[in-house]
Amino acid sequence: MTEGDKWKHTALLVIDMQNDFILKEGTRVGGGKAIVPNVIKAVETARKHGVLVVWVVREHDPLGRDVELFRRSFYSAGEAGPVSKGSVGAQLVDGLVIKEGDYKVVKTRFSAFFATHLHSFLQTEGIKSLVIVGVQTPNCIRQTVFDAVALDYPSVTVVVDATAAATPEIHLANIFDMKNIGVATPKLQEWCEDEA
Amino acid sequence: MTEGDKWKHTALLVIDMQNDFILKEGTRVGGGKAIVPNVIKAVETARKHGVLVVWVVREHDPLGRDVELFRRSFYSAGEAGPVSKGSVGAQLVDGLVIKEGDYKVVKTRFSAFFATHLHSFLQTEGIKSLVIVGVQTPNCIRQTVFDAVALDYPSVTVVVDATAAATPEIHLANIFDMKNIGVATPKLQEWCEDEA
Repeated sequence: MTEGDKWKHTALLVIDMQNDFILKEGTRVGGGKAIVPNVIKAVETARKHGVLVVWVVREHDPLGRDVELFRRSFYSAGEAGPVSKGSVGAQLVDGLVIKEGDYKVVKTRFSAFFATHLHSFLQTEGIKSLVIVGVQTPNCIRQTVFDAVALDYPSVTVVVDATAAATPEIHLANIFDMKNIGVATPKLQEWCEDEA
Repeated sequence: MTEGDKWKHTALLVIDMQNDFILKEGTRVGGGKAIVPNVIKAVETARKHGVLVVWVVREHDPLGRDVELFRRSFYSAGEAGPVSKGSVGAQLVDGLVIKEGDYKVVKTRFSAFFATHLHSFLQTEGIKSLVIVGVQTPNCIRQTVFDAVALDYPSVTVVVDATAAATPEIHLANIFDMKNIGVATPKLQEWCEDEA
């Protein structure tokens, strides 16, 4: 593959960078706010090289009827739960904007591949390499990564300082496990240099 | 549900307790051998209560054509790789025996649910509760657990001293993440007492 081909076959998956998960007391991920600048920079870098940007978000029924059983308690009658469809909480945080040519995938489970058409879409687009940023490392990031490995994507990369968990310890323990199954885990700076 | 109903709707998943993963130098899981007695006891306890026992195993093409891309290097031409179909390495370790009424599922990826008919089989059998033992915690155990949660099984249990990883640290970091998504993680003794 030439350099141009390489980026043509790469997609950046930006996962769950929504107000309720990054900013809202009670539902936010501890390390989420600190990575916003790096996620913005990852998107800018991707756009510069014509890399496909895929926005993966959760959007739930306000009553929680499509949420995992163990999270149903967050959705009580009469009050819209986290990332309810159409709510401000479900919107991307300030600084992240969907542009023409990007693609958006709505999921209701941890993995971006679970009961979505993401894999068939990426296959159709000829994507071989996935680069993943967003929250949170032990759940949506890791499940998406493990599914990508199971689906035989030849290259899976997690940008270690553009992903986050409740604590640095949880983040790093999960990065360790992902490295062990062949996942690349560069810092943003290294990834951007690689992209240059 | 009555007590009898409870066990009728429970399945014990015994994952990857095969010679190559438990005993063989180079492919064995560090903590695997130590849990064999507890896995045997979990199976005995399940049988006593009429709990469905499901044996989940990996079996691969000797040339590795159906293994994850990142593991292909273990399958070199002319030499059968780990857990090759029909090999001694793919057999269950001594002390574990498939009996009439048990069920066996062959998988080629980490999760027992990935590209298998396990979910539809368990649905047909009316299973609501899953109890999981075997190896290894960060990969096949965890992926099966996260998929079970995504599939809305009302109760998912990992027996903490009948599962194992390369090191106790990796094992416990993964148990921690699973607890955080509502998974029960009793010791075998507690689970057996609960079953009594």
